[in-house]
Amino acid sequence: MDGSLAEAGERRIGWASRSMPVLTAIGARFAEELPFAGIRIAACLHVTAETAVLMGALRAGGAEIALAASNPLSTQDDVAVALAEYGIAVHARAGVDRDTYYRHIHRALDIAPDLVLDDGCDLVNILHTERTEIAVLGGCEETTTGIIRLRQMAAENALKFPMVAVNDTRTKRMFDNRYGTGQSTFDGIMRATNVLLAGRTVVVAGFGYCGRGVAERAKGLGARVIVTEIDPVKALDASMQGYEVRSMAEAAVVGDVFITVTGNRDVIRAEHLVLMKDGAILANAGHFDVEVDVRALADLADAVHPGIRPNMDEYLLNGRRLLLLAEGRLVNLAAAEGHPAAVMDMSFSAQALAAAWLAGEHANLAPGVYDVPTQIDTQVASLKLAATGITIDSLTPDQESYLHSWRLGS
Amino acid sequence: MDGSLAEAGERRIGWASRSMPVLTAIGARFAEELPFAGIRIAACLHVTAETAVLMGALRAGGAEIALAASNPLSTQDDVAVALAEYGIAVHARAGVDRDTYYRHIHRALDIAPDLVLDDGCDLVNILHTERTEIAVLGGCEETTTGIIRLRQMAAENALKFPMVAVNDTRTKRMFDNRYGTGQSTFDGIMRATNVLLAGRTVVVAGFGYCGRGVAERAKGLGARVIVTEIDPVKALDASMQGYEVRSMAEAAVVGDVFITVTGNRDVIRAEHLVLMKDGAILANAGHFDVEVDVRALADLADAVHPGIRPNMDEYLLNGRRLLLLAEGRLVNLAAAEGHPAAVMDMSFSAQALAAAWLAGEHANLAPGVYDVPTQIDTQVASLKLAATGITIDSLTPDQESYLHSWRLGS
Amino acid sequence: MDGSLAEAGERRIGWASRSMPVLTAIGARFAEELPFAGIRIAACLHVTAETAVLMGALRAGGAEIALAASNPLSTQDDVAVALAEYGIAVHARAGVDRDTYYRHIHRALDIAPDLVLDDGCDLVNILHTERTEIAVLGGCEETTTGIIRLRQMAAENALKFPMVAVNDTRTKRMFDNRYGTGQSTFDGIMRATNVLLAGRTVVVAGFGYCGRGVAERAKGLGARVIVTEIDPVKALDASMQGYEVRSMAEAAVVGDVFITVTGNRDVIRAEHLVLMKDGAILANAGHFDVEVDVRALADLADAVHPGIRPNMDEYLLNGRRLLLLAEGRLVNLAAAEGHPAAVMDMSFSAQALAAAWLAGEHANLAPGVYDVPTQIDTQVASLKLAATGITIDSLTPDQESYLHSWRLGS
Amino acid sequence: MDGSLAEAGERRIGWASRSMPVLTAIGARFAEELPFAGIRIAACLHVTAETAVLMGALRAGGAEIALAASNPLSTQDDVAVALAEYGIAVHARAGVDRDTYYRHIHRALDIAPDLVLDDGCDLVNILHTERTEIAVLGGCEETTTGIIRLRQMAAENALKFPMVAVNDTRTKRMFDNRYGTGQSTFDGIMRATNVLLAGRTVVVAGFGYCGRGVAERAKGLGARVIVTEIDPVKALDASMQGYEVRSMAEAAVVGDVFITVTGNRDVIRAEHLVLMKDGAILANAGHFDVEVDVRALADLADAVHPGIRPNMDEYLLNGRRLLLLAEGRLVNLAAAEGHPAAVMDMSFSAQALAAAWLAGEHANLAPGVYDVPTQIDTQVASLKLAATGITIDSLTPDQESYLHSWRLGS
Repeated sequence: MDGSLAEAGERRIGWASRSMPVLTAIGARFAEELPFAGIRIAACLHVTAETAVLMGALRAGGAEIALAASNPLSTQDDVAVALAEYGIAVHARAGVDRDTYYRHIHRALDIAPDLVLDDGCDLVNILHTERTEIAVLGGCEETTTGIIRLRQMAAENALKFPMVAVNDTRTKRMFDNRYGTGQSTFDGIMRATNVLLAGRTVVVAGFGYCGRGVAERAKGLGARVIVTEIDPVKALDASMQGYEVRSMAEAAVVGDVFITVTGNRDVIRAEHLVLMKDGAILANAGHFDVEVDVRALADLADAVHPGIRPNMDEYLLNGRRLLLLAEGRLVNLAAAEGHPAAVMDMSFSAQALAAAWLAGEHANLAPGVYDVPTQIDTQVASLKLAATGITIDSLTPDQESYLHSWRLGS
Repeated sequence: MDGSLAEAGERRIGWASRSMPVLTAIGARFAEELPFAGIRIAACLHVTAETAVLMGALRAGGAEIALAASNPLSTQDDVAVALAEYGIAVHARAGVDRDTYYRHIHRALDIAPDLVLDDGCDLVNILHTERTEIAVLGGCEETTTGIIRLRQMAAENALKFPMVAVNDTRTKRMFDNRYGTGQSTFDGIMRATNVLLAGRTVVVAGFGYCGRGVAERAKGLGARVIVTEIDPVKALDASMQGYEVRSMAEAAVVGDVFITVTGNRDVIRAEHLVLMKDGAILANAGHFDVEVDVRALADLADAVHPGIRPNMDEYLLNGRRLLLLAEGRLVNLAAAEGHPAAVMDMSFSAQALAAAWLAGEHANLAPGVYDVPTQIDTQVASLKLAATGITIDSLTPDQESYLHSWRLGS
Repeated sequence: MDGSLAEAGERRIGWASRSMPVLTAIGARFAEELPFAGIRIAACLHVTAETAVLMGALRAGGAEIALAASNPLSTQDDVAVALAEYGIAVHARAGVDRDTYYRHIHRALDIAPDLVLDDGCDLVNILHTERTEIAVLGGCEETTTGIIRLRQMAAENALKFPMVAVNDTRTKRMFDNRYGTGQSTFDGIMRATNVLLAGRTVVVAGFGYCGRGVAERAKGLGARVIVTEIDPVKALDASMQGYEVRSMAEAAVVGDVFITVTGNRDVIRAEHLVLMKDGAILANAGHFDVEVDVRALADLADAVHPGIRPNMDEYLLNGRRLLLLAEGRLVNLAAAEGHPAAVMDMSFSAQALAAAWLAGEHANLAPGVYDVPTQIDTQVASLKLAATGITIDSLTPDQESYLHSWRLGS
Repeated sequence: MDGSLAEAGERRIGWASRSMPVLTAIGARFAEELPFAGIRIAACLHVTAETAVLMGALRAGGAEIALAASNPLSTQDDVAVALAEYGIAVHARAGVDRDTYYRHIHRALDIAPDLVLDDGCDLVNILHTERTEIAVLGGCEETTTGIIRLRQMAAENALKFPMVAVNDTRTKRMFDNRYGTGQSTFDGIMRATNVLLAGRTVVVAGFGYCGRGVAERAKGLGARVIVTEIDPVKALDASMQGYEVRSMAEAAVVGDVFITVTGNRDVIRAEHLVLMKDGAILANAGHFDVEVDVRALADLADAVHPGIRPNMDEYLLNGRRLLLLAEGRLVNLAAAEGHPAAVMDMSFSAQALAAAWLAGEHANLAPGVYDVPTQIDTQVASLKLAATGITIDSLTPDQESYLHSWRLGS
């Protein structure tokens, strides 16, 4: 049984690695340079095929690794089994409850890691509360949500070691947040609902990198798109791109499909739910399942019909049927397969290079949140362009000196 | 067992009917007017939840119905069972072989239909070859492919009864061909591959209504789109819309994903396959599985790895890996759920109204291919707008007379 | 004085002809085949550089030509002078009054034409009312508006000779109506107003070929686009393309820029004007200046400030400032340079080939409105593709026979 | 004569101010708070109607102002005259030569300014070279190009006073660089050429904010767009947005229209020019006229035909005709009217608020390049949203605390 699971996992990892030429190239270099020789790494990430390719690259670089899941819903059990066969300690199983989820993180921390890789900041949080005995040299954080939490910790002088904001690289933001979330959110919504999006009114809450990606894909599928925001600059930008911008209270009345992608809680709450049309669809593409106030929805409902399709529950409010996808959890992970491997190739390559940089530089870094060095970003992008067969220009000496000379007139 | 299948089928039909307000309204009217009282209808259609809603409307109108599948891959067994419980004779089962497929059509014809509904012209073909003893009053055809065959039959004076080209209504063309095929093709490709489409080069073969829809969605997902055509006018139109237009031989060299949607055969053939890049993905969104020359692909291959993912086979050609989706069959039906119900609401409403019109008018119609009367088209669109809550303008008396008066100067 | 005007006109014609490779090629063929030897042609067209290239092709084909303007505002006087030097009788001058406009048409008719070319049907109208003594063999009509009038005449058995609906070719509709009107309308609006369109709400009245083109460009410039329609099918199509669809009364309240392109009158009238926001801009891209009810606007206004910018008049209504562009006349002709030459290359090539076809076939054609033979359309498109350097596929013999065989199964 | 010029200027300023509600509101506040009481400001900006509205706001705030032109081609003489009547010392005239251009800047500096506003860094450059006797408290720079020069000066410790990088605000980048340049570049190209852009291949050199805006508008007009870049991250981003990315040498062969917008020199140079097609159009939308190597073009040319249309010169190279627009200067300023007022409303509002902030804070600021404080950015965006009638959400207390709490789990 486990044998065939391991095989299925390997096939899946093999398929993912085809779309990850950059990380594969980095792994090959790591195998020569061994940047992680003697280093223990604890990672709390989605346990998916793409993560497996990252683990492989780190292990090729000499690391000892323990991996826990950053989301109980996203674990691919076959991948977990296959990884174990590679000699990586995996503490993850699909669909576990909250207690087991946290126990798994603790098990990963039991290796007393030198470096940590986090996705949402739960592991780092535990290191600062329950497992303060572990002396970590530094780590990487993958998500916007996690970075917000880390910056807050740093502001309160609570952060105990340097953390690299992998999320904040340009390659991560552009590719993963914008294109990955954009496509996979609709992959999830289509699988969960099979509704035609052309001609529908799609409300996108949040116009950060992820929200922009979701709005672009909604438009690309023929929807009328309404954006809600709290930041005036982002709101104006959305408006200048041709989107309608409204308050959620206004949008609630006209929307057919609502997608939250803000990093905040209660973005859709009781006051909005009571305004919605019969048949309105609610989906979340933000990291945590707090963006739609599911409790308020349950409280308001006269009846709930769970599972009228896979990943779709129906709530009856005064004769109107509201359809919640994936219980308000990440719809792209719960109802589809998460980010395509090509996207993860970019962010995990940045992650791998950032970890190697940390392994060398941690002694020079005070506790705090650090940007990924820009040369890492450029290197990842260059490797990707090469893999795609795209040639770009480079500066001529004259151009180089023009850019550095301020004495030239108009 | 069958009980729970029937329940699952009913749930699925119930879900589809929510997105089919127009057909539902027409069914309610049929129940009052009984346009099909005493009429036997044989239908050869995809046996899906949406078809079930159509069958329900016809039956409400008094028809006796026998249904066979128009494609062995698309049958939803639970829907078939649920339809049987409604008293409709269903001859269909998922995944049957070619012989059984044709036997099922014969069984449906055994009721000696007065009217026929066809999807691809196989049933009508059999009526003109093997079952010439059946006297049919008329029928409707759903697909572009079928219409081409019917017009050819009419041109050869071989067609024996009036057929209504439901495919050729504006509502069908716009909604089903363009928006339905557009979205569901990528739904199928994403489920089958999970590749990121942003930044990929997608080659769309054919720029008819379906091809246009596929190209628009490819662009909307961030792909660079290349169109191939044989019609100079359509080719120019594609070019004016900003698409690159090339011959398939040119496109073969640069494409990452190829989608055929032409209604013709061998659109991608040996001469193109040998030019393709490692990792190229081949998908068909045209009616029949002849658009990619699968036999040539198999002949050229050094090895075949079937099922490396569901609905994906890998062919090795000189060290390059070509990935064929769904064996070259309709990717939106095989790898996803076919057209969303909202789309089918339009074409099946036209189908239902056209069948009712035929039931009344067949005596006045010579054998031939007939357009759907435009008032049916307008009626379907008006019902749909009403269901969507959209208000449009109507002509003032002055405007009405302006349009009819040619004597007014500039 | 006239000398330098003629030179300016020639330069302008030379520039236009660079973008008209198809018509140039046709002209060269005409010079060999002389399809118009001994034939007199009266044309009522916009007297622009592109028209001059058409006149050159017809004249090369042996025709004797008299030309009047189809719109007093669009005449390029330098072109008129240059044409006269080529030996074409031109009756046109920019900005003439209504009486002179009609007198010019009469002068063109004085050559007792064999064939006529019309743009808006005024010339043909006069042939059926005031100049019934002239026996015309047939003609071509360029505009949607004109075709509507001709079909009405045919329906009333009033049309006395065959007219070819040049407007109805696919190449004309796609290129001229959609892409030509789309771009040039915004060229006109930008020149007249210099407003930023990104983030503005643009209301497009009418979703025919022209309206679609205008809506696409509005969207492409970053505007939020609202479409109004009277045809339910077109309205639905607009909605499925992601546009908001509303009644004009609803749109009037929110629009920043209104563009009429319907072929009808009073599309924006008193009931709408009173609802509009301060600063609303009104433009017409339809053939005649009746789409915005300018009289109602003047009647409602407390004050009028003409010419606050070139081609912009301000009307004060209850403290709100409404801005009418180009007096409600075709904004792309009045405020910009009309359709780019590349567009006119397509429709004038169809016009030239249709005229040659008429010259040969008129004896076989009863009075009525005729479609342009499809081979003309295909020929124009093929010539254009060749000029653009685009290669397309052609059918293999197997494909050819597949399309003509209805006996093949699924 | 001057009287009517002044009137024309006032009309033009009045029209611009209608689209500048944010700056108007700020001016009203300045009139009450007088932040510039006793302060002398020298500005080197495009002397246009929009700049006049800015000058009005600063003057309302108590400033004594001298204004020179930042580009000899963009000066609107009527506006210059009107400004003089308001009591502002204007040193600018359209079309002056290089010497006069610099003399005008010196005249503006003669008031011994406390604060300076610059657009391209020429004025600041002179302050650091020829006019070192003037003690400036600080200044604002408007352009990307200028900021590059300032940062280089700061890096070399050459910068003598604090400069605020107005260019780097989010509102400026988004609105002015992206939307303003995007639209006005094509406004300029259409006026200069009247070519149809649908179906043409447009090559955009540079994918910064301006380049992105230009590429978006090109796509929105139906063009096939090719992007060239030197930055791998930007190149990848362009690719992920569906653009073709190529080296200029590759693009040169296929492009119909080339638009440079890089901030660098010689982006199109001899090696590219020799590859281009007959009829290729060359336009620059970058700040300085060095992006197309015009000298190389002249050297390569067998003949030059200046002014075949206004703002278009033809260069003959081996029988191919290359068309250079506006002599390689900013095409949107030279051939159209520059940025629409609505765009300048944003950047000039930031400019006005930044100047007021500098007036208060300069004593606390060491020499260097400073970002505009983010609250200025947010304030400008909020004022703009209010003027547009758009309502957005604000954080609930729960949301506010959620964003600041890192202790909450998943």
